[in-house]
Amino acid sequence: MKALVYDGPGKIEFRDHPMPVLTENTDLLMRVSHTTICGTDSHIIKGGVPTVKPGTVLGHEATGVVEEVGSSVTNIRPGDRILAVCVSACGFCRFCTTGMYGQCVSGGWALGNTIDGVQAEYARIPFARNSVYKIPDTLSDEQVLFLTDILATGYEVGVLNGQVRPGDTVVIVGAGPVGLSATVTAKLFSPRNIVVVERTPARREMALKLGATHAVGEDEVHELVGKLTDGYGADVTIEAVGFPDAFELAADLVRSGGHIANIGVHEGPATLHLEKLWAKQVTITTGIPSGLTIPQLMNSIATGALDATQLISHRLPLADTMQGYDIFTNSADTGALKVVLTNN
Amino acid sequence: MKALVYDGPGKIEFRDHPMPVLTENTDLLMRVSHTTICGTDSHIIKGGVPTVKPGTVLGHEATGVVEEVGSSVTNIRPGDRILAVCVSACGFCRFCTTGMYGQCVSGGWALGNTIDGVQAEYARIPFARNSVYKIPDTLSDEQVLFLTDILATGYEVGVLNGQVRPGDTVVIVGAGPVGLSATVTAKLFSPRNIVVVERTPARREMALKLGATHAVGEDEVHELVGKLTDGYGADVTIEAVGFPDAFELAADLVRSGGHIANIGVHEGPATLHLEKLWAKQVTITTGIPSGLTIPQLMNSIATGALDATQLISHRLPLADTMQGYDIFTNSADTGALKVVLTNN
Repeated sequence: MKALVYDGPGKIEFRDHPMPVLTENTDLLMRVSHTTICGTDSHIIKGGVPTVKPGTVLGHEATGVVEEVGSSVTNIRPGDRILAVCVSACGFCRFCTTGMYGQCVSGGWALGNTIDGVQAEYARIPFARNSVYKIPDTLSDEQVLFLTDILATGYEVGVLNGQVRPGDTVVIVGAGPVGLSATVTAKLFSPRNIVVVERTPARREMALKLGATHAVGEDEVHELVGKLTDGYGADVTIEAVGFPDAFELAADLVRSGGHIANIGVHEGPATLHLEKLWAKQVTITTGIPSGLTIPQLMNSIATGALDATQLISHRLPLADTMQGYDIFTNSADTGALKVVLTNN
Repeated sequence: MKALVYDGPGKIEFRDHPMPVLTENTDLLMRVSHTTICGTDSHIIKGGVPTVKPGTVLGHEATGVVEEVGSSVTNIRPGDRILAVCVSACGFCRFCTTGMYGQCVSGGWALGNTIDGVQAEYARIPFARNSVYKIPDTLSDEQVLFLTDILATGYEVGVLNGQVRPGDTVVIVGAGPVGLSATVTAKLFSPRNIVVVERTPARREMALKLGATHAVGEDEVHELVGKLTDGYGADVTIEAVGFPDAFELAADLVRSGGHIANIGVHEGPATLHLEKLWAKQVTITTGIPSGLTIPQLMNSIATGALDATQLISHRLPLADTMQGYDIFTNSADTGALKVVLTNN
């Protein structure tokens, strides 16, 4: 089969790769239908994720059709149309049993990281019982594809961890795919204001299209949030960039008693201004998604309350994956948000 | 009357000061019975709390007897024996109505900060309705004195914010009065281990006396916590020092999915290692107490489940307040924890 293989920092190739096979009775083999490229893949290619060894197939977001299941996978059958969550969950470790699938001792984020991923014609999905969801007949693969990572991440790690409530003023720092996923899912809680902070004008426009009430640059946001909140600050701030400045901005804009939800993947430390925050009764959270909200998010997609297909900027056949990476990594020129690769 | 007056950085004097009078109908005038010195008072004297203006009476922890109440204070009467909480709460602002008395828009920490405090023979307590509690006849002033600040702080901002649960491994960084208050109230939740990190041997001993299962230095704590938790890390870590190193240690010792509760009063920023924490699903909290747990803590004191009188290292008459400060600020030599001043 063909797959996108990581060959060490700066090097990827779309080439022949051994067909995956079931190795545990908890595995599932899927034929990939749709997959997509994530900002995390860019981190990997830069050499920023040392757990990824040369020779690994990248990708952790895919829909597909089940080819074969291990003997203990009794809830999914060959022929089922499924999405595979970016995190794999054994379902019985101390973290899985408390719903923290992202922290699973045997799984967690493994696909396209410590094991071969899904930017390929076929993929082995471990711990399939707790790590894939059947796609309802009424929904297309494109409609649910982003539930595998960014939509669940924006919702669980941003909106739910940040405890967005009706009437709130929410600040989302960064309007990349994850920040936009937080925007579109924050809207489900009917906040009063969703203020998106973003440098790129096209992404600001997209944020407004997806439900932001305001989209501004860093230089304008303090005055705006002050005006919108009578000087109190935002009820919830969500960091969706992964740089220290973005985190520090999120921490600076929150009100007393407010919530700062970090989603960003960080490669270095940030400065935590405890001299301002120690008495302010704030809550800071970090995390990766469990995917446990996916059934409910599917319901919201089915009713039309949630639609993230607008995040698709480019569609290509899987055979053109290398071109897809070019488009994605040059987003400043190409305007790329999510590049969807289809295996026909 | 006599009072301890702050005259600018490095300067305090116990001297004649105008007798306080009721200025609002929500005020109460109390004759102070017992008061004590807090680490925050040391911060003030060093000039570290710029909201405190020269000429201010210090102190925010006192019990006493009510002399006079304003017309709208209907729940407390002259002659009642009370404790005054370190934070004053209007009871009706957006923060008070959600129980965040420490963030009260008109009050908050005002005593011995923005208004005259309680290291005096008499004190005016604003917003008395929501800011004082009657002391049950069965309890002495000494038994409840620390509820006014450190015990409520250790409990609410440390133990409750950190969500200590039975069977947990809890790490408390710092065994000063606040860290020890967290220790003695954490014990109420029957954690498996309470590991106190502290440099001073005498304070380590006191921590063990008050319920810590282990008391060690920074150099030993990583190995110990690893051993106690099968390498997972602590369920809850509580920072009770107020220095960047202590916060960073607390953040380093927590397990995936764990809680880091900051109690310390910080004068500068700390480094937040988001490159380690972004995916770890941790929760970091800050805050100051509301005092709303005081009635329940009084119940625990009444049954004997909670006893913080062991924190009293020195007892002096109020007239010797200057000597009390000497003892308190030279704790390395004097072994001072809490110095109680009595107005007989």
